[in-house]
Amino acid sequence: MDGARISDISPPGRLAEPGEAISLEELALAARNHGLPLEALRYDLTPAGLHYVLVHYDIPATDADTWRLTVRGRVRTPLTLDLPTLRSFPARTRRVTMECAGNGRARLTPRPVSQPWLVEAVGTAEWTGVPLRTLLAEAGVADDAVEAVFTGADHGVERGVEQDYQRSLPLPVAMGDDPEVLVAYAMNGRPLPPQHGHPLRLVVPGWYGMAQVKWLREIALSDAPFTGFQQEVAYRYRQSPDDPGEPVTRIAPRALMIPPGFPDFMSRTRVVRPGQVRLEGRAWSGHAPVTGVVVSTDGGRVWSEAELAPQEDGHDWAWRHWHAAWTATPGRHELSVRAYDAAGHTQPVDPPWNRGGFANNLIQRVSVLCLAAPDRTG
Amino acid sequence: MDGARISDISPPGRLAEPGEAISLEELALAARNHGLPLEALRYDLTPAGLHYVLVHYDIPATDADTWRLTVRGRVRTPLTLDLPTLRSFPARTRRVTMECAGNGRARLTPRPVSQPWLVEAVGTAEWTGVPLRTLLAEAGVADDAVEAVFTGADHGVERGVEQDYQRSLPLPVAMGDDPEVLVAYAMNGRPLPPQHGHPLRLVVPGWYGMAQVKWLREIALSDAPFTGFQQEVAYRYRQSPDDPGEPVTRIAPRALMIPPGFPDFMSRTRVVRPGQVRLEGRAWSGHAPVTGVVVSTDGGRVWSEAELAPQEDGHDWAWRHWHAAWTATPGRHELSVRAYDAAGHTQPVDPPWNRGGFANNLIQRVSVLCLAAPDRTG
Repeated sequence: MDGARISDISPPGRLAEPGEAISLEELALAARNHGLPLEALRYDLTPAGLHYVLVHYDIPATDADTWRLTVRGRVRTPLTLDLPTLRSFPARTRRVTMECAGNGRARLTPRPVSQPWLVEAVGTAEWTGVPLRTLLAEAGVADDAVEAVFTGADHGVERGVEQDYQRSLPLPVAMGDDPEVLVAYAMNGRPLPPQHGHPLRLVVPGWYGMAQVKWLREIALSDAPFTGFQQEVAYRYRQSPDDPGEPVTRIAPRALMIPPGFPDFMSRTRVVRPGQVRLEGRAWSGHAPVTGVVVSTDGGRVWSEAELAPQEDGHDWAWRHWHAAWTATPGRHELSVRAYDAAGHTQPVDPPWNRGGFANNLIQRVSVLCLAAPDRTG
Repeated sequence: MDGARISDISPPGRLAEPGEAISLEELALAARNHGLPLEALRYDLTPAGLHYVLVHYDIPATDADTWRLTVRGRVRTPLTLDLPTLRSFPARTRRVTMECAGNGRARLTPRPVSQPWLVEAVGTAEWTGVPLRTLLAEAGVADDAVEAVFTGADHGVERGVEQDYQRSLPLPVAMGDDPEVLVAYAMNGRPLPPQHGHPLRLVVPGWYGMAQVKWLREIALSDAPFTGFQQEVAYRYRQSPDDPGEPVTRIAPRALMIPPGFPDFMSRTRVVRPGQVRLEGRAWSGHAPVTGVVVSTDGGRVWSEAELAPQEDGHDWAWRHWHAAWTATPGRHELSVRAYDAAGHTQPVDPPWNRGGFANNLIQRVSVLCLAAPDRTG
C-alpha cells in the first residue's frame, strides 16, 4: 500500500458529538492509564500503584546503569551525567501532590476526546533528587538563556506529529527556589517505577502533570521560547481551534472526599447507616496554600467549614487532610466539598470549559443512600 | 425520604443496547481499576503498579499488626492466625500469571455492562505464602467437609445484594498440590500492596482472578457447596438469565504481543519503519502448559510458528515468552498471535459470548502502519 501517511492513523483533536458516548479509543486509554481509587485518599503518601498514571506514548524500556542525562544548549559547560554522579549532589526530598491537567475532562460537554478522566487523576509522593538549579549552576547558564527544554525518552505520534515528549519551563521557574524544581531519581524512597519515569524525571511542585517530564534524558537551555507540540499545540486553554490560548501551568484548587460507607459495584453509589459519619479527604492547590474547605450534605445549598489538618513544614506543595462530621438520616443525599486557597482561588459550581478539557476543578458530588438496616436480600 | 431500598442504587445485571457506547459508570470502573500497559509484557515479573487490578468494592483499610485469619467450620481445631504465625510455617514462592475473568468483555456484542476490559487485564508476580493445605492440615479437615469458603474484608453491594466478597473452592482443589493454593503475604518479595490484598490473599494458580480472594480474613470449611453471590450468581457461563450455567474456573489460553514500534496517542495504532521488526510477547493457559504460539502479519490468513522460550522449572503457572521475526514493508498491516496449550485448547477466531462476558480470549489484533521515513510534519 503506497502513500500511507502518519496522518492516516493520527487524526486532529476533536470534540465528541452531542450525545456521543465514550469510544473504544478513549476506553483503551482509560484501561492503560489509571486514577487514584478515591478511598486511597486515606494515605498521606499514595502507595505504589495507586498514584495516578498518564503516559502519552509507551513506557520506554530504560536501563539505569547506562542512563545519561545531558545538559546542553545555552550553557557554559555541557554536562553528561550518569546516575551515580546525580546521586553525589546534595539531595532534596519533597512531598508533592501531582494532578493531570486533563482531570475532570470526561465530565465536560462537549467532551474533548482524549484520556477520559472523571475526577481521580491525582496522587502524592515524596520525590528525592537534585534541584534543577544545582545542575544548571554546575553547567553555567549563558546570559541569553530564557527557557529550559526537557526531553523524555518516550516517543510517539500525536495529532499527526511524530515527537519525543518535550516540554519547557521559563528560566525563572527552572531556577526558582519555591517551588524548587527537582530532577528526581526516587519516589517514596525507592527508585522510580517504570511508569513514573525510571530512572529520572522532572518534578515541578504545584504544576500539572504535563510539566513533570518522565524518562528525562536531556535538558537544553535555549535563547528563545520553545514552540514544540506539547507547549504550543497541546496544553493551552483555548475556546476555539484558532484561539492561541494561555499555557496550562499551575494546579487549580480542588478538594476530594473519600466516598463514605461502602459502594455498589456498578453505580459506585455509596451506602451508609444512620448516625454519625466522618467525612474526610484531601485538598490542594498549585497556586497557594489551601486555606479553607467547606462541605455540603444537601446538594450544595448549605455549606459548613471542615477542619483542616495543619500544613506540615516542608510540605507546602502537598495536599492537606480535612474532616467534618455528618449525621446521616435515611434517604438519598448528595455530598460535596470545595477548597479555597490563599491566592483567592476556589472551585467553580459550573465546569470551566476549554477545548483541551484542562483544569476542570468542578466541585465533587458524591451520591449516598442512607439505609436504616442491613439489607442482604435487596 | 422513606422507603429507600438498596435496589434503588444497585440495578440487575444487563447487556448494553445495540449501539450503546461505554457509560460513565463503566468508565468510572475503568478509571479506578487498570490493566497492564501492553509494553509491560517485556518484564518477566510485572513491576509494582503495572499488574492488572480489579477491586469489586473499595480497597479496605487494613492493619497487618492486628490482622487475624480464622480457619473454622468443618475442622477439628479452629485456628486464629496472626501474620508472624503465618510466616513461621514453611513458605513457598510461586510465579503465577493472573488474569481477570472479564478480560475482553468490552469487545463483545452485545456487551455485558460491567468492568469494560479490552485485552489487558493480566499480570505476573511471584507470590510468597503458606500452602493452604498446610493450614487445613493444621486445623484438621472433618470427614464431611466438601468445600472451603474464603471471605475477604471488602464489603459492598452488587445487583441488590449487600455482601462481603466470598468465594469457595472444592476441597480437592483447596488441598491440591498442582496447582498448590497459597495464602500469600508477599508479592515480588515485598508485603502485599493495598490493592493486591494487604496483608493476606489467596493465590490459586491457573484460575481466573475471582478465585484469588484478597484481604483474606476467614477460611470456613463447609459440608455443602457454597451458594453465595460470587459463586452462584456472578462468575458463571450463562447464555440467558435463567441458564444455570457452568462455573468460571481456569484461565483460557491467550497470547499477547508487545505492540511493536511506537504509538499514536489517541488511536494507539502503531508505527514501524521498514525492515526487520522483532515481534514478541507472552502466552499462558490455566489448563495446561502452552505448547505453541503462532503469529500472522497479514490479518490472519497465513500463520507461522513463533519461538517459545523454555518453560522454566517451578514456573508452570506463569506466562511463557515468545518471539518471531517480521520484515515490515510500507503500508498498513494487521498483526495477530494465537496460543495453543497441551490440553488441546486454543484461542477462537470469533469471540465466545456469554452474559457475564467471561473468558473472551479472542485472538489479539494489532494495527500497524509501516512508514518509509520519519515524518515530523504530518
